[in-house]
Amino acid sequence: MSQDRTEPSSERATRGALMGAEVAEQPDVWARLLDRADQPDGELAAAAALIGRRRPRFVQFVARGTSDHAALYAKYFAEIVLQLPCGLVSPSTMTAYGAEPDLTDVLMIGVSQSGGSPDLVTTLERARAQGALTVAVTNNPTSALAQAAEAQIDIAVGPEKAVAATKSYTGQLLALYLLLDRVRGGDGAAARRLPEWGTALLGRDDDVAELAQRYRFASRLVTTARGYSYPTASEAALKLMETCYLSAQAFSGADLLHGPLAMIDPQVPVLTVVGDGIGGRAMGQVLPRLSELGADVFCVGTPDAVAAATVGIALPDGVAEEVSPLLEILPFQQLARHLALFRGGDPDAPRGLKKVTETL
Amino acid sequence: MSQDRTEPSSERATRGALMGAEVAEQPDVWARLLDRADQPDGELAAAAALIGRRRPRFVQFVARGTSDHAALYAKYFAEIVLQLPCGLVSPSTMTAYGAEPDLTDVLMIGVSQSGGSPDLVTTLERARAQGALTVAVTNNPTSALAQAAEAQIDIAVGPEKAVAATKSYTGQLLALYLLLDRVRGGDGAAARRLPEWGTALLGRDDDVAELAQRYRFASRLVTTARGYSYPTASEAALKLMETCYLSAQAFSGADLLHGPLAMIDPQVPVLTVVGDGIGGRAMGQVLPRLSELGADVFCVGTPDAVAAATVGIALPDGVAEEVSPLLEILPFQQLARHLALFRGGDPDAPRGLKKVTETL
Repeated sequence: MSQDRTEPSSERATRGALMGAEVAEQPDVWARLLDRADQPDGELAAAAALIGRRRPRFVQFVARGTSDHAALYAKYFAEIVLQLPCGLVSPSTMTAYGAEPDLTDVLMIGVSQSGGSPDLVTTLERARAQGALTVAVTNNPTSALAQAAEAQIDIAVGPEKAVAATKSYTGQLLALYLLLDRVRGGDGAAARRLPEWGTALLGRDDDVAELAQRYRFASRLVTTARGYSYPTASEAALKLMETCYLSAQAFSGADLLHGPLAMIDPQVPVLTVVGDGIGGRAMGQVLPRLSELGADVFCVGTPDAVAAATVGIALPDGVAEEVSPLLEILPFQQLARHLALFRGGDPDAPRGLKKVTETL
Repeated sequence: MSQDRTEPSSERATRGALMGAEVAEQPDVWARLLDRADQPDGELAAAAALIGRRRPRFVQFVARGTSDHAALYAKYFAEIVLQLPCGLVSPSTMTAYGAEPDLTDVLMIGVSQSGGSPDLVTTLERARAQGALTVAVTNNPTSALAQAAEAQIDIAVGPEKAVAATKSYTGQLLALYLLLDRVRGGDGAAARRLPEWGTALLGRDDDVAELAQRYRFASRLVTTARGYSYPTASEAALKLMETCYLSAQAFSGADLLHGPLAMIDPQVPVLTVVGDGIGGRAMGQVLPRLSELGADVFCVGTPDAVAAATVGIALPDGVAEEVSPLLEILPFQQLARHLALFRGGDPDAPRGLKKVTETL
């Protein structure tokens, strides 16, 4: 079952090797980032102190692609924990339309692996000129985005060579969590055991490979979750689109009920995240509707939620909801990679994509 | 070509009759709303005056489904024209997670056809208690959302009976435009000719029906646009999902290049909006990439953009970009309706959906 016999396994081992290595590397990457975060004179401490001094009243995030999903996570965190109203910037309003908003009291955080997309750089430059406190979260401290910002955080996950971002995504999640947790006076305690949990979860790679066979011939699917896990649904969908070339649509569980539910039937797989927290419990309104429709459900979540689904992978016990997105995405990264290989694609270098995307 | 011979035309005339009537009614609905907006002591004038007095520094929108696309349009307008930083609220942060943000100087606008979804009502109530100036834009002045807000605007489009929202969407767009234009000191001049332009564009219904045959057997498609037209792409995708049960994914043209482009090939139709404005010109970076991939493109836009696409419907000349979303969506509403009929569905009552969706 877990072998695709249509091609030699040696070829499969070459294709997707970069993505596989980068997925596997994540617990080590997190451990390094956690160590660096403890340095009292480090970037994180400096950025948190700066934010503390300036006391922003509003937070805006600017990002694209995978980084936009990390920003969406941070938006939930800042709204819930820092209790600040937040927004995701549409970059074109400042770049193409030339808006010059008054950004006094605004914290604007730019998130980008490469730090190179011109529209993000321009947005952060203009925001700084308009009075915002600007912070860049990138994987390249010498990038234009990092240079444009008043404070910067280097996620330092090392070179990411696969086009489909994996370790840079969870590196961004962790850096944003550690930064914003520090702003509220925390010490990142909820994240300490993430490397250990991540290693255990990644050990299910063979099980995920077997589950991936289920979607060998799917042309479209839906991902859904709520609250902190909604960014996971969004990022899972993007990974599947990028690597497997199928249509994957992410909806918050609530938004799914406002219309898109009509397209769900037994032929449209649903991938969901139902963790042990408020977001997972809020899915209680959605899951019975999916059952009624006969939907085929892949669940990453609590053992109970996995047992109630068609198939799934259980999350470790005892993880605080606010850091669970780092773990939840891991089985989806593995799923995307295995499914891409089974379907004959190369998840390291999907058709039509470059690693650094420059939009204006 | 324009007849589907698999069923009697009389049956097709019954299914989708409500949606057809409501689509056709839009120019009249707009004309009534424009008349009401001119009343110096009307709701719009009162709400605009209240906003002017309170001088909000940040605008947040809360909405779901189709109304969320109207909110997204208003977010672009407020960012570009009022030059205020904006955000779309994730309702769960206040309802499920219990966040109590400081919303002093925040204008929060709730948008909902029914005004009845509990999560939106709770969000607006809490926002008001937390110091926000709250405005409700609904089609029911006695609804809980309208009652919860400090100011309300009744879009007054009349009862909307088809589950797929059409006239309430453009009614929301127009009400939001007129409100925010008045806040900047305008008199809604750009919207005056909309009823006339809308009537002309709706006259292409037979042409759209013929084009709809092209997608008879599509199971998935992509919609894309930029700037003010991005909400059109989002709403077009939702209409097609709701009524035709296909996967329809909307991307800003820039976000499409950051990953999802990988899933585009000649088997995935692309529906785009390329108007005569900044958003349309910004698509200049995207369209050549779609061409390279051999994508089949349906374009609503300028005559030149339509000529360069595979098929399309041209927009009237001389429309200001900031009001063009009211017109752009019309061919997509017609397309969704005809395609649903050809595929054997009933766009008035899609499977699995109710008109009023209550999420917590």
